[in-house]
Amino acid sequence: MVRALQLARKAHYTTSPNPRVGCVLVKDGDIVGEGYHIKAGDGHAEVNAIAQAGVNAQGATAYVTLEPCSHFGRTPPCAQGLIDAGVSRVIAAMVDPNPQVSGRGLALLEQAGIQCASGLLESDARTLNPGFIKLMTEKMPYVRCKLAASLDGKTAMASGESQWITSKDARQDVQRLRAQSCAVISGADAVIYDQARMTVRWSELGVLKNSYQESELRQPLRVLIDSKNRLTPDLKLFSETSPILIISTEVESLHTWPHFVEQAVVAKSACGQYVDLTEVLVLLASKGLNDVLVESGRQLAGAFIEQGLVDELILYQAPKLIGDSGQGLMLMPEVQRLSQAKNLTFSDVTMVGRDLKITALLS
Amino acid sequence: MVRALQLARKAHYTTSPNPRVGCVLVKDGDIVGEGYHIKAGDGHAEVNAIAQAGVNAQGATAYVTLEPCSHFGRTPPCAQGLIDAGVSRVIAAMVDPNPQVSGRGLALLEQAGIQCASGLLESDARTLNPGFIKLMTEKMPYVRCKLAASLDGKTAMASGESQWITSKDARQDVQRLRAQSCAVISGADAVIYDQARMTVRWSELGVLKNSYQESELRQPLRVLIDSKNRLTPDLKLFSETSPILIISTEVESLHTWPHFVEQAVVAKSACGQYVDLTEVLVLLASKGLNDVLVESGRQLAGAFIEQGLVDELILYQAPKLIGDSGQGLMLMPEVQRLSQAKNLTFSDVTMVGRDLKITALLS
Repeated sequence: MVRALQLARKAHYTTSPNPRVGCVLVKDGDIVGEGYHIKAGDGHAEVNAIAQAGVNAQGATAYVTLEPCSHFGRTPPCAQGLIDAGVSRVIAAMVDPNPQVSGRGLALLEQAGIQCASGLLESDARTLNPGFIKLMTEKMPYVRCKLAASLDGKTAMASGESQWITSKDARQDVQRLRAQSCAVISGADAVIYDQARMTVRWSELGVLKNSYQESELRQPLRVLIDSKNRLTPDLKLFSETSPILIISTEVESLHTWPHFVEQAVVAKSACGQYVDLTEVLVLLASKGLNDVLVESGRQLAGAFIEQGLVDELILYQAPKLIGDSGQGLMLMPEVQRLSQAKNLTFSDVTMVGRDLKITALLS
Repeated sequence: MVRALQLARKAHYTTSPNPRVGCVLVKDGDIVGEGYHIKAGDGHAEVNAIAQAGVNAQGATAYVTLEPCSHFGRTPPCAQGLIDAGVSRVIAAMVDPNPQVSGRGLALLEQAGIQCASGLLESDARTLNPGFIKLMTEKMPYVRCKLAASLDGKTAMASGESQWITSKDARQDVQRLRAQSCAVISGADAVIYDQARMTVRWSELGVLKNSYQESELRQPLRVLIDSKNRLTPDLKLFSETSPILIISTEVESLHTWPHFVEQAVVAKSACGQYVDLTEVLVLLASKGLNDVLVESGRQLAGAFIEQGLVDELILYQAPKLIGDSGQGLMLMPEVQRLSQAKNLTFSDVTMVGRDLKITALLS
């Protein structure tokens, strides 16, 4: 199963919105076939492992990081594939997170007389696919919020100067965060003032270039929250042709947008001024986008966090002190008492170049 | 030498302002004696090791974390003690950091026909005594600045509410920082508004209580910067009898202070409003105080950092987000451009309870 998890991780930047899945076939103590799901539309992990094993699949044990599927999607059901290949035993790390189909794949296998079990290294398997699991169980995407600041929590000087507080290594790491996401959300401010393009730039992926081909990488959907219809087609953002979704509260018909731009209207929030962010996430979920990165200024980031919509915070802290005249990380006007502060649990701290990368889960 | 370094660390909370030193005597591959310097006035590490070894010191090799002293202080010179004990070889991790006496101890030993060397695990030995080394080489104390904040760099709510952002574990760790320091510096604000006592409280030392006796712990000198003579004898601070030094720009003669309070006058800073902080440190250095902890509000902490007087920053980060209406970590009014930001190098990150403890060196 450890090998199956390793295989699943190989597809970290390519499979979403499909889950990352690995499969290993073992017979008489030897690995006879292994595979993983590379990207949507391609063969599933089990199919690839069976193909590699050939006749050796007969009587083998299949270790798979997710319960084999039982339904026809873009590919035939993997449970049937395992039955046809003649495996004698299937061990899944976790059952299908969709409560409506959970257990059906294993049941199909058991009906065919195959011995089944699940739960082996389940917590490792769950960390492979937080977005897929959350979409299946809660019908909402898994939201990461990325921020970068000095050690005293400043993202810019009083003048607005902010390029660059963090190092090139941290900025390359952000490119990798984008590359693993289905969608990147930003606000009109960030793309107007910072001229952000919000794309994954192959040249800036650093070490990732050693393990992927440029052709394998996908561009996340670029989602722009533009409550006041301030975006214009001349922005740098629109010079790159990967898909863009502009979300506003009213139809904008002044401009002619390029073909890769889609517009959506979402209700105003309760305070009436901005787009309802919960509705934005519901819209993204309805499009099957499960792994979403918020990369925005302090107002939009603060709003997502204050409204309890962020699952994971990723903060790059530069080894600099700016002092209190600098601009802070996030606006959260409703947090006035310490008991209202948003609580986190630190889950990881690493060095990225000279900067700290702190990952924390919101509760 | 690794054992000698371990021994020296045993005195982490007791020796200062004297250096932490360990000594191991090895003969025919066996340790025949070992010792460390527990506190000022007590026997030095070499003396304790020789006493333990007895006649076995004859012909032994002495591993010592600091060059043996060559002068009469409160105790006779250790170099002479090693000669008298008949050791045949002395290996020092580092020479005496005082440039005026550096090498004299080893020279004395060599003149007596003892083989000498230095530099073994020197960098480890240097980290034992940053305060002692800085005082000897630069005639200034080693200054640590301790701060505590939420992950977004806020030390208090807009209302001033701040108890408690960090956890009990982090606050116990601060008690240990105080316990290892010769002096703790704060401003009048902190002791007036927070009713801080600035003492080490035995009951709050956590795990440290397992390896020390209550009688072994010392109280650091409590240094109060009171530029505007705002302190009054009724403050909670003065209810505990460990020594206090009040530093102001003019003699204060309105109040009658308890016997453990000393007053000092220091010149005003160039801007004319506050005590000159460099002069404060010069004063502390002249008293032999080499390991100093700044534990103050954002104005004084910012001033120390802005003026380049801090060697090491220790930041406790709580897993909370407060938002931009909270109060920031430090005021540094002169930092207006990113190129003026104060640069750090991260040297350590650990978890203390649920909080992060980040240690960084200022350059």
